[in-house]
Amino acid sequence: MTDQTPPQFTNTAIIGIGLIGSSLALALRARGLTDKIIGIDQDKDVLARAAALNLIDHAAASLKEGVSDADLIIIATPVGAIGEIVSGLREHARDGAVIIDAGSVKGVVATAAATLPERLLFVPSHPVSGTEQSGPEAGFATLFEERWCILTPLARTDEAYRGAVDKVAALWRAVGAQVDIMDAEHHDLALAITSHLPHLIAFTLIGAADDLESVTEAEIVKYSAGGFRDFTRIAASDPVMWRDVFLHNREAVIEALGRFTEELIALQRAIRWGDGKALHAAFERGQALRHTIIEAGQETASPNFGRDQMDDKGSEQN
Amino acid sequence: MTDQTPPQFTNTAIIGIGLIGSSLALALRARGLTDKIIGIDQDKDVLARAAALNLIDHAAASLKEGVSDADLIIIATPVGAIGEIVSGLREHARDGAVIIDAGSVKGVVATAAATLPERLLFVPSHPVSGTEQSGPEAGFATLFEERWCILTPLARTDEAYRGAVDKVAALWRAVGAQVDIMDAEHHDLALAITSHLPHLIAFTLIGAADDLESVTEAEIVKYSAGGFRDFTRIAASDPVMWRDVFLHNREAVIEALGRFTEELIALQRAIRWGDGKALHAAFERGQALRHTIIEAGQETASPNFGRDQMDDKGSEQN
Repeated sequence: MTDQTPPQFTNTAIIGIGLIGSSLALALRARGLTDKIIGIDQDKDVLARAAALNLIDHAAASLKEGVSDADLIIIATPVGAIGEIVSGLREHARDGAVIIDAGSVKGVVATAAATLPERLLFVPSHPVSGTEQSGPEAGFATLFEERWCILTPLARTDEAYRGAVDKVAALWRAVGAQVDIMDAEHHDLALAITSHLPHLIAFTLIGAADDLESVTEAEIVKYSAGGFRDFTRIAASDPVMWRDVFLHNREAVIEALGRFTEELIALQRAIRWGDGKALHAAFERGQALRHTIIEAGQETASPNFGRDQMDDKGSEQN
Repeated sequence: MTDQTPPQFTNTAIIGIGLIGSSLALALRARGLTDKIIGIDQDKDVLARAAALNLIDHAAASLKEGVSDADLIIIATPVGAIGEIVSGLREHARDGAVIIDAGSVKGVVATAAATLPERLLFVPSHPVSGTEQSGPEAGFATLFEERWCILTPLARTDEAYRGAVDKVAALWRAVGAQVDIMDAEHHDLALAITSHLPHLIAFTLIGAADDLESVTEAEIVKYSAGGFRDFTRIAASDPVMWRDVFLHNREAVIEALGRFTEELIALQRAIRWGDGKALHAAFERGQALRHTIIEAGQETASPNFGRDQMDDKGSEQN
């Protein structure tokens, strides 16, 4: 698991050229990890833009054409598409192909991957990394740097599969990520609290603000620097991707949501009864946790995320 | 209300030298709006640090000493202190002194301010601007630029008070803010949704994560880039300030919370029943609203708030 040699691929097929697909294309190219990249996307316009951006060497007309000669297949679509894609790979992928995905839910991917024949080496992956932007134009080669990528390997112990797990871990390390390995069920629980619930809450806040009659949208916009604007970042993420996350991680999200709601009701009660001590005790926990996240290299120490030092076009660089 | 001439003060007293007090001190000095700044803080260590940082010209030993010669008095403490400070000002402030505060709740401030004699000109103010950092070291002169400052003037129509409202509006404009005027009740409702509720939700998420036994804190930290880390910014804000906000804006916060909870339950139901259409429709609203906030100059267009372009010490500047 600690092999530091970057893996080398000949033909890489990327299915779904959005933020993650385009970032992986750029990162693979920047590190010289593949000779060629073949793009596959059900949206022909996306595929044309990916070619124009030089993200891919070839735009495949079909899944069959795109994957049949690939030694690395990257599935970077919303997780709802996994079943259909796995069916196509069963038919068209060549022997020994290494397959990864980048989905934010792993149980559903593991179930689909387990239906593949032994000749195909699917190692479910989740790079915990992204931005609120979507599409092939949104990608950048450093997206995975310093972030964690979680692998949830299948219950296979054959040498070919163990080799594929090592290779996939080395691939993610080569594009700058740190690698953790766990089972799909634990992944889905951990990500329910660190990613899915935060997104659901952000979407909920936007909805609640939208429905208020007494406060105008103009006021919400003007006074959003009071905190609201922070939530709009993750609420601006791709709606299809997030619909699929919630449809495929129902139990863990509802469990996390139950904890959240209990905590919220407790704080609401403290507000109603004017219990300043309880509020203060609850509010004190934030600073320590943020400090730990900054120390771990997962967040900037700059006040306001450093956004005040950015120009309005986002073109500032170090 | 549209006078663009910056006001001029001789002696400015700042009560509470935290993020807002120190930022105002720096902004007043940078624009030459006051001859002298007197600092008042119940924490003698904070006062000494403010003097060492050259934020203030003089550290007052008492409220009486600090305000008796001031023509501008700025209250920049948590709102819970407003009653006691107003009592002190009634006794010690000089005739014609202009008084402002910077509290995030205005009803309680209006009630306290209305008890002052006519000779004192208190114009409640709320600059909707801040960072997650606290204390005199956290201040910077540009904190208010492009942000909105809301004034909630008292029900007084005398010329002296109307002159003070104009002067306070000009003061906030001079430090870079845009000025809105409304009644305290509407302010408290608008800010409940744009600021208080977002903070409460962020504190709640941190609490819910803290209480999970099945996911470790180490995992929460490592995978926080999935969305969780965004919430830790506002949850790292000063716990005393926020305790006071919730104790003094109970009705509006509980009303906003009711809307939030209804929306959350509706989304939870959509998840439980696998209603992808409802989820997609709810999730689609985020992109448009964020775009409007960016267009209004209240948020950066950079992906991830531009945090990826910051170094880990937060020292990058334009």
